[in-house]
Amino acid sequence: MRRAILLLILAVLSAGCAKTPKIKVSILYPNAEGKHFDVDYYRDSHMVLVKKLLKPFGLLETGIEKGLAGGDPNQPVPFLCIGSMTYNSLEEFQKAFEAHGQELVDDVPNFTNIQPVIQISEIVKR
Amino acid sequence: MRRAILLLILAVLSAGCAKTPKIKVSILYPNAEGKHFDVDYYRDSHMVLVKKLLKPFGLLETGIEKGLAGGDPNQPVPFLCIGSMTYNSLEEFQKAFEAHGQELVDDVPNFTNIQPVIQISEIVKR
Repeated sequence: MRRAILLLILAVLSAGCAKTPKIKVSILYPNAEGKHFDVDYYRDSHMVLVKKLLKPFGLLETGIEKGLAGGDPNQPVPFLCIGSMTYNSLEEFQKAFEAHGQELVDDVPNFTNIQPVIQISEIVKR
Repeated sequence: MRRAILLLILAVLSAGCAKTPKIKVSILYPNAEGKHFDVDYYRDSHMVLVKKLLKPFGLLETGIEKGLAGGDPNQPVPFLCIGSMTYNSLEEFQKAFEAHGQELVDDVPNFTNIQPVIQISEIVKR
């Protein structure tokens, strides 16, 4: 009887833990002739501003990946930098961006002349 | 005297903790007319094989991001999927790929007809 109750509690807790998947917003800056990207400014200023403005709206984590190389050593790296933000839901990201997106977009010329590619993805768990 | 020794120990430990940055290998599958991607197979089979073969060589983490949308709601999502692997160093990734890369490449037609873009990046800490 006790064991059955314990198993029931564990089952309910497990079901409660099956949360909706998190969302990752990736900002990819493609490499090309004449393009530049200031990773130091991006890390020390832009991403600091991103966290300050968007954490109150649910921003969980940020990431910065500085491009080193592509799959073909004879070709340039595909992206000079990839930035990312994680949220619990698409709605949280949308509200965050409605509130402060323009201010963040206005900061972009301070670190790059690249038009980024934006990717919104579901983080797939295994 | 005791305080000075303690500070010295802390300083040495901190210096020892300034590790070289980790490496992220991203495999991006661009969306296009006629292209498909089986995320279920990628999650339940391909990435399982990746972990089995490459963890002994230092693979730390894997990630799967399923493309939902781009920055422009009137345009298709840029990438159907983005896979990733994290390593402590580029050398570890290179050895892992030399050992098992072909087997993993041979599995690709089982889940997609897209030629991926490979990006090797340094994970920038703040």
